[in-house]
Amino acid sequence: MRPPPFDPVPCEDDRYARDSTTGQIYHRVRHRVLYADTDRSGVVYHSNYFRYFEKGRASFMRDVGYPYAQVEASGYVYPVVELGLRFFAPLVYDDEMWIHTRPTDLERVRVKFEYVITHAVSGERICRGFTQHCAANERGVPVAVDPATVKAWKSFPP
Amino acid sequence: MRPPPFDPVPCEDDRYARDSTTGQIYHRVRHRVLYADTDRSGVVYHSNYFRYFEKGRASFMRDVGYPYAQVEASGYVYPVVELGLRFFAPLVYDDEMWIHTRPTDLERVRVKFEYVITHAVSGERICRGFTQHCAANERGVPVAVDPATVKAWKSFPP
Amino acid sequence: MRPPPFDPVPCEDDRYARDSTTGQIYHRVRHRVLYADTDRSGVVYHSNYFRYFEKGRASFMRDVGYPYAQVEASGYVYPVVELGLRFFAPLVYDDEMWIHTRPTDLERVRVKFEYVITHAVSGERICRGFTQHCAANERGVPVAVDPATVKAWKSFPP
Amino acid sequence: MRPPPFDPVPCEDDRYARDSTTGQIYHRVRHRVLYADTDRSGVVYHSNYFRYFEKGRASFMRDVGYPYAQVEASGYVYPVVELGLRFFAPLVYDDEMWIHTRPTDLERVRVKFEYVITHAVSGERICRGFTQHCAANERGVPVAVDPATVKAWKSFPP
Repeated sequence: MRPPPFDPVPCEDDRYARDSTTGQIYHRVRHRVLYADTDRSGVVYHSNYFRYFEKGRASFMRDVGYPYAQVEASGYVYPVVELGLRFFAPLVYDDEMWIHTRPTDLERVRVKFEYVITHAVSGERICRGFTQHCAANERGVPVAVDPATVKAWKSFPP
Repeated sequence: MRPPPFDPVPCEDDRYARDSTTGQIYHRVRHRVLYADTDRSGVVYHSNYFRYFEKGRASFMRDVGYPYAQVEASGYVYPVVELGLRFFAPLVYDDEMWIHTRPTDLERVRVKFEYVITHAVSGERICRGFTQHCAANERGVPVAVDPATVKAWKSFPP
Repeated sequence: MRPPPFDPVPCEDDRYARDSTTGQIYHRVRHRVLYADTDRSGVVYHSNYFRYFEKGRASFMRDVGYPYAQVEASGYVYPVVELGLRFFAPLVYDDEMWIHTRPTDLERVRVKFEYVITHAVSGERICRGFTQHCAANERGVPVAVDPATVKAWKSFPP
Repeated sequence: MRPPPFDPVPCEDDRYARDSTTGQIYHRVRHRVLYADTDRSGVVYHSNYFRYFEKGRASFMRDVGYPYAQVEASGYVYPVVELGLRFFAPLVYDDEMWIHTRPTDLERVRVKFEYVITHAVSGERICRGFTQHCAANERGVPVAVDPATVKAWKSFPP
């Protein structure tokens, strides 16, 4: 499958990059593949990309000033309710990647993140995916997205 | 989100069940949640469902007579190229589930599996997802789906 | 390294086996390697054996009538405080194993399990290990081992 | 259990630290706990510490000029043959740690690493462990430790 266009250009604050093909801003963080992430076919096992997405998401939340640990300390949890992922090329052991993360849809009880992973050296597009999360209180009951999360969404890009 | 209807009724060969709402046949295998699968919110971490799907897929392939170890011994690999997952309810520690697996699309170079996980005791629908795989040879080059896999698809339901 | 002798002979209740070299009784449960468990060297990644040990331990506790879910429902947790593992041979994808589990030391605030994994078909000894756990209450404060756990230890072998 | 003394003082090259209680030099690298690493008791699941050790080990090998990817490219693998771990305090979600790694025993066919993890903010000692690896060629046959690894051991501390 041909990967959709994606051409990230680092912003002045280089924790962010602008996709020159769409103008959209992504948060980005670098990460390296562990041996533990690979499988016997020699590439990263597919489910491990959701660890990378989590790192992207957590790093994004921290950099916009509302770390997920603080979200939970405020009495909210954001379990994943839907996710999707398309692969264009594999990562192998010791590869370094850029994890690009972007907050997208903000609904009354749900938020969505989009991710694009590229190879840090070659720039090759590896995969593109999303996670959708619903807001819940500590007992797991769905609630409206908390105001600080709404603010994080509305103030992005910074 | 309301789960789509799914009402599996065990077949005479109880490794299979028929969804009475659509008439479709699924392979099924039982599995239990480990502590290792859970996260600090008390439920199964989302990426671990792909382990469950793998177990469903491998068990299906074994029961239709073409175990994945044999696929690879024949010189083929089937890496995941796309996946998706929607959650309706969480699983917690020690829960037993039924993993329902069904081969769906068969294309020239790709195959697709669909999965539905239900709680083994309550019958509650937990999640629904899919994985799409492309056929490749040992060097990772895309090739046509191998004849034995085509046969497995065409001879299902048994 | 030469594996120490271990020759499990199934008991009448075949959830248990007796090591004919020492006379010790082990609980046993069968398990199969997932693709997700392997790494790029083609064998199971070392840390995944602790998932297998957890399955052995949980299955043992269930079969002696005190499932770990019930331990926690009673207000106790048993975090691992020490562990060890020696490997004699690797497991590869799709291998079936027997996980043998035996409760060993019972101290005032700690309990210990010993494990031996063998290949289910060849009988080859794969690894031997242990986990030691301390008793704690729900706030993580160390406490004396709970009476039902003491009973489980004292009534083994069944 | 009381943790053994460990008091790391950063060296001039701050990728290394000197334990003032023993004078030993450790390589060190910073790492942060993911949600995926935690379990339902709220702390990091014990087997995940071996991911952290792998990161420490890989980072050490890279910084001494012989990355593990290059070890394998040279035709060697170093599977774990024994491991051990003692816990003194748990890590929780989002905690940052220092992973301290030190090459210890160098035998004809085996090498050993020792690890100490401390909390990056409080300095609390979290755990101490080791992994022992045997040298093998690409077909898994044990061989003598390769010369570049011997050199890495002998030239440490830098």
